[in-house]
Amino acid sequence: MILLTRRYKFSASHRLHAAHLGHEENRELYGKCNNPFGHGHDYTIEVSVAGEMNEQTGKVIRVEVLDRLMQERVLSAFDHKNLNAEVPEFMATPPTTENLALEIRKRLKAHWKSAFPEVSPVLRRVRIYETKRNIFEISEHL
Amino acid sequence: MILLTRRYKFSASHRLHAAHLGHEENRELYGKCNNPFGHGHDYTIEVSVAGEMNEQTGKVIRVEVLDRLMQERVLSAFDHKNLNAEVPEFMATPPTTENLALEIRKRLKAHWKSAFPEVSPVLRRVRIYETKRNIFEISEHL
Amino acid sequence: MILLTRRYKFSASHRLHAAHLGHEENRELYGKCNNPFGHGHDYTIEVSVAGEMNEQTGKVIRVEVLDRLMQERVLSAFDHKNLNAEVPEFMATPPTTENLALEIRKRLKAHWKSAFPEVSPVLRRVRIYETKRNIFEISEHL
Amino acid sequence: MILLTRRYKFSASHRLHAAHLGHEENRELYGKCNNPFGHGHDYTIEVSVAGEMNEQTGKVIRVEVLDRLMQERVLSAFDHKNLNAEVPEFMATPPTTENLALEIRKRLKAHWKSAFPEVSPVLRRVRIYETKRNIFEISEHL
Amino acid sequence: MILLTRRYKFSASHRLHAAHLGHEENRELYGKCNNPFGHGHDYTIEVSVAGEMNEQTGKVIRVEVLDRLMQERVLSAFDHKNLNAEVPEFMATPPTTENLALEIRKRLKAHWKSAFPEVSPVLRRVRIYETKRNIFEISEHL
Amino acid sequence: MILLTRRYKFSASHRLHAAHLGHEENRELYGKCNNPFGHGHDYTIEVSVAGEMNEQTGKVIRVEVLDRLMQERVLSAFDHKNLNAEVPEFMATPPTTENLALEIRKRLKAHWKSAFPEVSPVLRRVRIYETKRNIFEISEHL
Repeated sequence: MILLTRRYKFSASHRLHAAHLGHEENRELYGKCNNPFGHGHDYTIEVSVAGEMNEQTGKVIRVEVLDRLMQERVLSAFDHKNLNAEVPEFMATPPTTENLALEIRKRLKAHWKSAFPEVSPVLRRVRIYETKRNIFEISEHL
Repeated sequence: MILLTRRYKFSASHRLHAAHLGHEENRELYGKCNNPFGHGHDYTIEVSVAGEMNEQTGKVIRVEVLDRLMQERVLSAFDHKNLNAEVPEFMATPPTTENLALEIRKRLKAHWKSAFPEVSPVLRRVRIYETKRNIFEISEHL
Repeated sequence: MILLTRRYKFSASHRLHAAHLGHEENRELYGKCNNPFGHGHDYTIEVSVAGEMNEQTGKVIRVEVLDRLMQERVLSAFDHKNLNAEVPEFMATPPTTENLALEIRKRLKAHWKSAFPEVSPVLRRVRIYETKRNIFEISEHL
Repeated sequence: MILLTRRYKFSASHRLHAAHLGHEENRELYGKCNNPFGHGHDYTIEVSVAGEMNEQTGKVIRVEVLDRLMQERVLSAFDHKNLNAEVPEFMATPPTTENLALEIRKRLKAHWKSAFPEVSPVLRRVRIYETKRNIFEISEHL
Repeated sequence: MILLTRRYKFSASHRLHAAHLGHEENRELYGKCNNPFGHGHDYTIEVSVAGEMNEQTGKVIRVEVLDRLMQERVLSAFDHKNLNAEVPEFMATPPTTENLALEIRKRLKAHWKSAFPEVSPVLRRVRIYETKRNIFEISEHL
Repeated sequence: MILLTRRYKFSASHRLHAAHLGHEENRELYGKCNNPFGHGHDYTIEVSVAGEMNEQTGKVIRVEVLDRLMQERVLSAFDHKNLNAEVPEFMATPPTTENLALEIRKRLKAHWKSAFPEVSPVLRRVRIYETKRNIFEISEHL
């Protein structure tokens, strides 16, 4: 088994606000990230895929397939967007980086098998760098 | 003369839109940066100061003074903000990184002499990394 | 379970010298790191915490709590210090990066439960970059 | 157990071409990496070693021993070389980064015990950054 | 005047060999870079353009125009190529990074005015990172 | 004229203390850098050399010559050293990064002509990254 990790980037704006909490609690919980006008980040995503190497080609997967999946299901929906206003899943749920990681994994899983019909690679990990200092990942098996 | 460069960061959201241009022209000019809901970036700013070294202390300036000036005049106004909605100068002017560099330099110049009353360092350059691939700078003398 | 990693930095000086070994053996074992006058590094520490995400807030932990714990128990004791002369644990034990990693984990563990009384995040990993080329980590569970 | 990771670099050229496939299939499979004249990369390799820390020296292994092993068995054979033309294992097998990782691990394993006769560190992981965006690793135990 | 810098990457292989020098002199001059089978690098190019900002759009140039010029005249000719075998200018001239910088500037200059017919930006600097440690630049005015 | 920049690293410890100032003034001036036990950094130095390219070899200088000069005159004296205790020039002068830059330039200038007897490259700039956020440079001509 070989683990292949590929890195993507997107830029987006968001506001952290929990619908069930009051104004003061939101301010206390999220600090300046609760600013009602929003702010933004340049996110880096790493997607890690484990699989057997094809002896003939020397490759685990065709990276173009993963790129297309990420482009169609994740990047086109998130890049240069306002996450709260333009991504339906974040209209009621705060777009914390934890929730972003969960949502990206969910979107990849939903289309994983149809993207890789012949080989059976495993989506091992989704990792997001919110900034260089704040990194979130989900690594349980699918 | 020694040149000291200090690096700062801020995260903000913005939308590029020129008030004097129509919908189609804006879309054509700014592409996905014209998205009405905005998007965001993690900006890196480098401020470069030229000055004589004080022989006794071995320093050009006290870096804390520059940090305070940047914090009070630039970072507190830009960090975790929506530039179009919360920075008066960008309500009518598109917050391109070119304009951001000009505005940062203008703010530093306005308070430069009172920040450094005894020594006379020169603000040589303001450089902004919008992303790692897009870098803007103004380096004329003050 | 989501894994959150947060990055910290500190600058310190140290000298590598094993009390039980003679002059020649120390020189042979640690090379230029055995220089009696010491030398220094800018260390980067990554602390990784695994936990359940709070559905309401979308967060695993409050990062400020981890920051305060690191500041009070680790950074205030190590940053801009001479590790051999100013950190009691390294007066008899050589401050190799392996020992630094163990000491940081020990300090975090000692105050972990009182720092996070309500949630039960797990300190999954302490990783130190001595330089970009030398990286040490402890990742067993607490 | 402590995990030590050390980073190495080498520059090489290669051409991706599978001997059992035809011209069209190779072009379709490897794209511009199939260019018959070859192209090149600056590879970064991370070798991760797990082991007990020696209480007296505070070290897991002597890093010089790992450096020598890597230099003699891997870097001297790969650095500033044409992988297809100068590394026997890649004359028939395409030098994809997956195969590079396997070959590096194989070479380290073949000389591991004689390099570390007294301590018994474990070669936990070989990771290669083909570029910053494409990362491959093998992490099974030896 | 604002200076805009944009960063590009390409991967290529090359061999350093001076046609007018003998075997021994080439070996002595270029060391392992003289290996007849070639080797490769991932080059980073920074192109810096100085110009007046358009007050209405807040931009110095349209970055897409520079991208297209670089793609058509430089990247398509150099990326994933063997510079000695596939770039006519380097068949007789050694593809050192110095010569690469000169050739890139020459290609940009040849098409500069037709690329920017209305505005008159100045190509201020071409800089190439051969590796992170070796950087070459030409910064005279065109 | 082509500008070649080469990057070097060294790790050292130091203490900032001005001999002519009292205890309180030193503490106030240098903050935690005045800690009597010292602390340390991993410095990055960039040396920039301007010169004519040799048409035959395609090179401005032989980089090995610059490497040897830096190794013999700068790195061997500074790397893994305590700057205050082991570098004579910093026994009375505070080893601020400003003074480090001046001292490095002075050492390079003293041996410049004998290092490059045939070509006449110009030492254009010495730049030191104390950390990623604090950068000092001297760029006047020699």
